[in-house]
Amino acid sequence: MVPRIADRPLLFALPGNEGFASRLASALDAEEGELETRSFPDCETYLRLATSPAGRDVAIVCTLDRPDPKFLPLIFAASAARQLGARRVGLVAPYLCYLRQDKSFQPGEAVTSAAFARALSREIDWLATVDPHLHRYGSLDAVYTIQSSVIASAPAIAEWIRHMIERPLLIGPDIESEQWVSTVAKLVGAPYRVLRKERFGDRDVRISLPDMEDGLGRTPVLVDDIVSSAQTMIETSRRLRSIGLPPPVCVAVHALFAEEGFATLKKNAARIATTNTVLHSSNAIDISGSLAAGARSLLHSL
Amino acid sequence: MVPRIADRPLLFALPGNEGFASRLASALDAEEGELETRSFPDCETYLRLATSPAGRDVAIVCTLDRPDPKFLPLIFAASAARQLGARRVGLVAPYLCYLRQDKSFQPGEAVTSAAFARALSREIDWLATVDPHLHRYGSLDAVYTIQSSVIASAPAIAEWIRHMIERPLLIGPDIESEQWVSTVAKLVGAPYRVLRKERFGDRDVRISLPDMEDGLGRTPVLVDDIVSSAQTMIETSRRLRSIGLPPPVCVAVHALFAEEGFATLKKNAARIATTNTVLHSSNAIDISGSLAAGARSLLHSL
Repeated sequence: MVPRIADRPLLFALPGNEGFASRLASALDAEEGELETRSFPDCETYLRLATSPAGRDVAIVCTLDRPDPKFLPLIFAASAARQLGARRVGLVAPYLCYLRQDKSFQPGEAVTSAAFARALSREIDWLATVDPHLHRYGSLDAVYTIQSSVIASAPAIAEWIRHMIERPLLIGPDIESEQWVSTVAKLVGAPYRVLRKERFGDRDVRISLPDMEDGLGRTPVLVDDIVSSAQTMIETSRRLRSIGLPPPVCVAVHALFAEEGFATLKKNAARIATTNTVLHSSNAIDISGSLAAGARSLLHSL
Repeated sequence: MVPRIADRPLLFALPGNEGFASRLASALDAEEGELETRSFPDCETYLRLATSPAGRDVAIVCTLDRPDPKFLPLIFAASAARQLGARRVGLVAPYLCYLRQDKSFQPGEAVTSAAFARALSREIDWLATVDPHLHRYGSLDAVYTIQSSVIASAPAIAEWIRHMIERPLLIGPDIESEQWVSTVAKLVGAPYRVLRKERFGDRDVRISLPDMEDGLGRTPVLVDDIVSSAQTMIETSRRLRSIGLPPPVCVAVHALFAEEGFATLKKNAARIATTNTVLHSSNAIDISGSLAAGARSLLHSL
């Protein structure tokens, strides 16, 4: 039975998310709603939902890299949908921001992960995201009070590696990355190593290597969840080359890349491949299918 | 009796508000707290209150022109203050944003004034601001659920005009401005006129003139609350000159000026003077004393 239009979920894409939302809509058999937005001369945001969400299950699609200017437009969209009679209003944020500051390291530091989660939880009914950067938090439920669905990128990344790289040796640049790299390695059926990282500042990182003897003759594939300054991947690539390994393939889930970091990493890597949670020229792995599968139950609240 | 340090209110300035906060602190005998903030390489905000707010009455000072990137840092500061034991946490926003879209003019439009007020009201205990742009709302209480104090700029503006302009004729460019211009005119002891404006788009405005016979021989002083594109003031200045009046003095409360608008207005005005609710090269009228007087009762919650 083909569902009536009004039963199909309705997706609204914030600017920059149209392509991803369109793939998601296909995978979910959802309707793409029309969202108009622009900046007034005083830099306030105008926003209009040109497709009526009345009685519909709605998802706002908005990835949350460089999040500060995105928050108000996002809550304006969610609030408008609710005001106009949407049944439930969720957020598909392929990249979810503000998970890194999960405690006060110095007295007086804002625990932005908790403040952001609290503010966002008040505005939406549910949340779907890909591989959130959970470190000290066991799950999103530790900070988000709304229902959430966490989608793993490992299957899509593993499939890409299997098709593209012969005899890979997967490498995680630090202990935090072990959770991603071990899962991907298992799915690929390849060995992996996890290195040790010491961080001396936002952009100052040093790496120490474990025994790499049996890795020689394989293609090193660095895997991490987030690349922003890219210092960790750059430094790791250099250290691997210093012991005679070839330039590595660098794979990341979330391409937050500062421009300079991306340029430097390109010089030190055989190839850079990222998923499309954050729009970037390095995107090579489509995650929208996995996200659709994970978001389906949240989006159909029948 | 000199109050103990811990009894004095504590002000934290978000970036760009340090000068205004400093004047405010003097006027209120408040302490200026130290707030550290910076951007991580991934463009998330780091924020730390380096002065402990424990047990103190706190005000965050943050004017809200160009508001979208400012909202998260603001709520991080408020939330950190609360987390660290502040007694009450208020916001001094010399300019308060998102009051212009106060209804849906087209179906589906987000009523951003209501959504913003709701989100902000959840994060702070009270709010002090200067001349909010209330049009269809009778008062801030129509949208804000927290205690608020509205400070009038008219006395400070009137004093400036009395000292600087001989034989002024005050002119409001449209009906909405009548509330400001009539009050200022009364305080100055000068006549005033209100013109009629038709708006055809964000930057397309046409002005019609009332009878100006008895204004000849006076210095026209245009008074409005907000200048952003400045099209209203530019068009009004041109119309006044077309009937033989000299270039007007242009006075505004909130200098939101788009760069191009300011440059064009300068060519059409004898002088531009604004209050310092929004930092701008045209600031000539200090409003911090009036704001301190209005915020005092909110800040001392003893």
